[in-house]
Amino acid sequence: MFKKRENVAEIEEGSLLSPRFDNDGLIPVITMCAKTKEILMHGYMNAEALKKTIETKEAHYFSRSRKQIWHKGKTSGFTQKVTEIRIDDDQDSIWLTVDIGDGSSCHVGYRSCFYRSIPLGKIDDAKKIEMKFEEKEKLFDPDKVYKDQPNPTKI
Amino acid sequence: MFKKRENVAEIEEGSLLSPRFDNDGLIPVITMCAKTKEILMHGYMNAEALKKTIETKEAHYFSRSRKQIWHKGKTSGFTQKVTEIRIDDDQDSIWLTVDIGDGSSCHVGYRSCFYRSIPLGKIDDAKKIEMKFEEKEKLFDPDKVYKDQPNPTKI
Repeated sequence: MFKKRENVAEIEEGSLLSPRFDNDGLIPVITMCAKTKEILMHGYMNAEALKKTIETKEAHYFSRSRKQIWHKGKTSGFTQKVTEIRIDDDQDSIWLTVDIGDGSSCHVGYRSCFYRSIPLGKIDDAKKIEMKFEEKEKLFDPDKVYKDQPNPTKI
Repeated sequence: MFKKRENVAEIEEGSLLSPRFDNDGLIPVITMCAKTKEILMHGYMNAEALKKTIETKEAHYFSRSRKQIWHKGKTSGFTQKVTEIRIDDDQDSIWLTVDIGDGSSCHVGYRSCFYRSIPLGKIDDAKKIEMKFEEKEKLFDPDKVYKDQPNPTKI
């Protein structure tokens, strides 16, 4: 299914898919909302998740916390319909564009996982850096949607 | 400068920056073009690169191939002026929005590193997957710009 990685010219300039999975068998994935162009999340796929995503046209990831294939939206109902998949020059990262309708993507309840911005400019080493919330309202209540499922965030 | 990661609620719902760097001291970075909203590249930062990016408002990464801080555009002239930095819910990935003017981002010569798309639908296991070039023309000649520098792509 995937071409063996043999030389740089083929990887960069060729048209055959030969993704590079890291030592854990994973490739990073950037997920963009087709409608708003905002970044919804950053995840990982293994070879099986990539194959399932291509074939079903619904985003599948590999959950590093649960150590298993993760059909996004299976619990929350917020599936991601894939409209485009791209891969980068050295074929070690993926850009997915998805349609989530009026749904949400973030397990905390916001539409995008990237709901906070970091201020630019000189850092005062004596202080912690205070971020700004760019999304103000949660679109759903995670306690109701995920019930007893463990929170994937690791300290 | 960064708040210590102590509990999930603070990391997800708090306003203090406490990024999670992986075992190699790195955090993945998604870089978007401010003008076109296309993804230009996927890279990594260490704590120093993140600090330099915040303070100088120009994207700094950590080059995994050269194992050093990488001020993007220092060789090619294609610097990235940062217009926004966001971080995700569990603070383990960064979304950078940058202005590259009429410049380019990809070391192969294209504007974006993501110049190829992967077709969606049933995979024929007997065949390799053929991609489509979404960018047709290189914006610069990498041999002229990078001269004798080694190609960062790893097999």
